[in-house]
Amino acid sequence: MKITALAGGVGGARFLRGLLAAAPDANVTVIGNVGDDITLHGLRVCPDLDTVMYTLGGGIHEGQGWGRAGETFSVADELAEYGVGPDWFTLGDRDIATHLVRTQMLDAGYPLSAVTEALCARWKPGVRLLPATDDRAETHVVLRDEEGKRQAVHFQEYWVRMHAPDAESIVFVGAEKAQPAPGVLEAVAEADVVLFPPSNPVVSIGAVLAVPGIREALAATAAPVVGLSPIIGSAPVRGMADKVLAAVGVAETSAAAVAEYYGPDLLDGWLIDESDAKQAERIEAAGISCRAVPLLMRDVDATAAMAQAALDLAAESRS
Amino acid sequence: MKITALAGGVGGARFLRGLLAAAPDANVTVIGNVGDDITLHGLRVCPDLDTVMYTLGGGIHEGQGWGRAGETFSVADELAEYGVGPDWFTLGDRDIATHLVRTQMLDAGYPLSAVTEALCARWKPGVRLLPATDDRAETHVVLRDEEGKRQAVHFQEYWVRMHAPDAESIVFVGAEKAQPAPGVLEAVAEADVVLFPPSNPVVSIGAVLAVPGIREALAATAAPVVGLSPIIGSAPVRGMADKVLAAVGVAETSAAAVAEYYGPDLLDGWLIDESDAKQAERIEAAGISCRAVPLLMRDVDATAAMAQAALDLAAESRS
Repeated sequence: MKITALAGGVGGARFLRGLLAAAPDANVTVIGNVGDDITLHGLRVCPDLDTVMYTLGGGIHEGQGWGRAGETFSVADELAEYGVGPDWFTLGDRDIATHLVRTQMLDAGYPLSAVTEALCARWKPGVRLLPATDDRAETHVVLRDEEGKRQAVHFQEYWVRMHAPDAESIVFVGAEKAQPAPGVLEAVAEADVVLFPPSNPVVSIGAVLAVPGIREALAATAAPVVGLSPIIGSAPVRGMADKVLAAVGVAETSAAAVAEYYGPDLLDGWLIDESDAKQAERIEAAGISCRAVPLLMRDVDATAAMAQAALDLAAESRS
Repeated sequence: MKITALAGGVGGARFLRGLLAAAPDANVTVIGNVGDDITLHGLRVCPDLDTVMYTLGGGIHEGQGWGRAGETFSVADELAEYGVGPDWFTLGDRDIATHLVRTQMLDAGYPLSAVTEALCARWKPGVRLLPATDDRAETHVVLRDEEGKRQAVHFQEYWVRMHAPDAESIVFVGAEKAQPAPGVLEAVAEADVVLFPPSNPVVSIGAVLAVPGIREALAATAAPVVGLSPIIGSAPVRGMADKVLAAVGVAETSAAAVAEYYGPDLLDGWLIDESDAKQAERIEAAGISCRAVPLLMRDVDATAAMAQAALDLAAESRS
């Protein structure tokens, strides 16, 4: 079975681990978000791709869900001694090695997809990990500063430094000229199932969809497209989905509102948490098959059950 | 008193520490060798400038004479896991922070002299540290491989990986087009004393002299130019001076041979070790004032005495 999954960072990576447990023989392609990517200290950092790679490759810091296990911070301490910023984003030493390899390959002319493949040759994540695009398409957030003036900041600054204040809008800078990376459109067209993990619908999945051609491929694919709600009750399980949903005009933070935001053109099926079961009727009315199941990724077993439920819903949608 | 010193790496840096102890009120400018500079993992590494900066700034690994005290190697361990070479040159984590700051500034368009000044703003080495040139002038070594074929390797590869085999010649790649960095020629012209520390006469001091204009400025300056022999007996105190002297046609490894290699156009005075006292007559005959004193840099006091002897010889030469 060919499964293609779009993915953001921590939530997407943890879901993928459950998916591989549920479908160990599946051929899984992951289309990773690159909207969070940022250049720091001259190093090209791809947080979401690396979170997927480290998580599936056994190198992740399990407690925090991102960054490397056993990480050290000698370089960051020294950069601080030099007074070189930014001081709100700390790169670990082990992580820096990844960025050095990536940056050197990018400088040598390799596209990000080739770089990612080279890095994965070490990590062996068990999936084919593709960046959504080899082009730069960075997620920026427009908000008002303390004096009411409009400003735009890189998503990392919005999230890591500013801790996600209210936002006015989201801009995928450069996305309109970006092209899907090699293999992305094929992975959508040729999949047996397409999955949207419980990642942020705006700045993770949404940033992937912002690359021209990917949304169209998803609407056109013969494969059922099934997503898992990142919202349980009225709050995101982790992250700032409520804030960025509001910035794209989705005032309500709920599983149903996210399903409607994606819409029936993209989604064939949508899994919501059992505590939100009463929203199922509304989602079905929108033309999207819905099932209510436990959606908390407590451990790999619970996550595998979620993935299996998604595959089951996909099988129903196909028949 | 204005003192200008040319310097290589470990020997030069240790001598400078003694010089600052001997002449704490002097205004010292150091013209540092950049022939050893190399780009590794996309990072611009300037070993000799950093050795001077770390040694005088209190950050050096005292035992080995280069690299940072308390260094860690997380990044290098990870690069090895990625299988990314070269495996014969290991960058420490703390050191990498320096190279990140430097590389980012160079990429932003700052010349190496401005970058070095910025790095020294943290280290406060107590001297004005100037690279010999802002241009690339890399020391390469021509030698025969095992099959007798001629090959040229970067000096770092010759020294660190190959452990200094017999060499045919030394080439300062790019030096012919290099210009002295801002302040270098003025530092030579306006000095009260110019010193050649006991650094390698070919790949340290020689690489500085290979930058067009510096040799001429040294020959023209009104200041006495006094050097200290890096050779005691028939061997270099450290390093591979014997091998690279042979490659520039100096078959004899001795204090006198090095003095003659520099010649009376450059040198007004030359300090040799007391054990080599009988060479003094030959050096004086070559038109260079000579004194025999203890030349082993055992500690800062011994080194300060050497520096004082050099200043004393300069004072005699001036009068």
